[in-house]
Amino acid sequence: MSHPNLRVNLWGWHACFEAWHNEKRHIQALYLSKAAAERFEPEIHKARKAGLKRPEPRIIDPKVLDSSIKGDPVHQGIAMMADNLPERDVQDLIIACENGGLVVMLDQVTDPHNVGAIIRSASAFGAKGMVMQKKHAPTLEGVLAKIACGGTEHLPVAQATNLSRAIEQFQEAGFVVVGLDERGDQDFEKAKAHEKVVLVLGAEGPGMRRLVAEHCDLLVALPTVPPILSLNVSNAAAVALYALKR
Amino acid sequence: MSHPNLRVNLWGWHACFEAWHNEKRHIQALYLSKAAAERFEPEIHKARKAGLKRPEPRIIDPKVLDSSIKGDPVHQGIAMMADNLPERDVQDLIIACENGGLVVMLDQVTDPHNVGAIIRSASAFGAKGMVMQKKHAPTLEGVLAKIACGGTEHLPVAQATNLSRAIEQFQEAGFVVVGLDERGDQDFEKAKAHEKVVLVLGAEGPGMRRLVAEHCDLLVALPTVPPILSLNVSNAAAVALYALKR
Repeated sequence: MSHPNLRVNLWGWHACFEAWHNEKRHIQALYLSKAAAERFEPEIHKARKAGLKRPEPRIIDPKVLDSSIKGDPVHQGIAMMADNLPERDVQDLIIACENGGLVVMLDQVTDPHNVGAIIRSASAFGAKGMVMQKKHAPTLEGVLAKIACGGTEHLPVAQATNLSRAIEQFQEAGFVVVGLDERGDQDFEKAKAHEKVVLVLGAEGPGMRRLVAEHCDLLVALPTVPPILSLNVSNAAAVALYALKR
Repeated sequence: MSHPNLRVNLWGWHACFEAWHNEKRHIQALYLSKAAAERFEPEIHKARKAGLKRPEPRIIDPKVLDSSIKGDPVHQGIAMMADNLPERDVQDLIIACENGGLVVMLDQVTDPHNVGAIIRSASAFGAKGMVMQKKHAPTLEGVLAKIACGGTEHLPVAQATNLSRAIEQFQEAGFVVVGLDERGDQDFEKAKAHEKVVLVLGAEGPGMRRLVAEHCDLLVALPTVPPILSLNVSNAAAVALYALKR
């Protein structure tokens, strides 16, 4: 038996739970399996009590979700169609860090699994935002949002046309810019003395692009030992976020 | 046009590179695309010079690899069929830590992407080995080995029938056993005073099983902030490995 496909862009418990309670999200539709509907019931009431405008959930056969969500079978019986969150820019993140804070910048890290995990870790360690290059930014939905486990609802993500220019904007606003790079000769201590930090991560393999690396104030290498010298980029990001946390 | 499928269990540049130079690996066959063969040429000579017994590489159409490797199209034109590495047990890891060191223990963490990333980070931060539960241990090949980026060749991995019993063995040998757990009330400082450490990680969601958690000497929570309190398990592992590194 074939099912009509639903248009959904968020799925999985945590991603949908956090989106549902995010007042900045406009949600067009919520689809639940019978089992998920029972579990989600209290959230419907909570959102209503909080005065959030939310659609009536639709109970569906989980097989409909199986066929609607390509390439990720783990939806836990819950999915949504939601509008994108409002766009942010570098200036928004500078304001968010007025009293100090850390912003993550991704230079051509585009794999949705890695970006999702980085957003989750950045949220968990209290980062104030993230910057990606407009041309290479994956959309903050689907597998990425599921892996971010709700982090996309809490971490403001800005897109910048030119990352070197964005770095300059942060520097002019008093940030120290720390690049994580195997070739670095610094550790995290110097960066920790600063109230406002941008942490720059490059793609695995090539690392940061030369021009971006040259714009950093410090290049830090993780204390790894041969022969395996580098970590998966989301693992490296988590370590740096922890090391720079106050 | 259809191609005959090859039997391969390792693929990707780093996984194959490290296996090729690992004297403990018996390699049955090496398959290379024409482009990869050129790049790999020096490694053939190096292995010969080092006296390693290695098969003659076979040049193949990369499309043959596409169809032989299910579910992971990124093989970089290189793949192998290799025997498993020799089995290890808890006692081997205790001996490896004679002069101090850290061992990672996974309690029902089974996703090959996560286990692969943890093996890579553990190698990079100089861990002396890993323990998994025999019943739930994924095989150290394929996607897992590719994501481990060669770490599987350097990090001894032991399988234990009963993790609580394994913890007792480590404790009897003078190890302190540190469980990473959201409910923990300790930080990494106490654990760092010890020369020999076992770091225990549980599956995302359920965390460590109760009996395993009860066997730990310390339960440490990462310094996360609401509402996103937990990290992806490989991200959490990387942070703990960094924090416990001397």
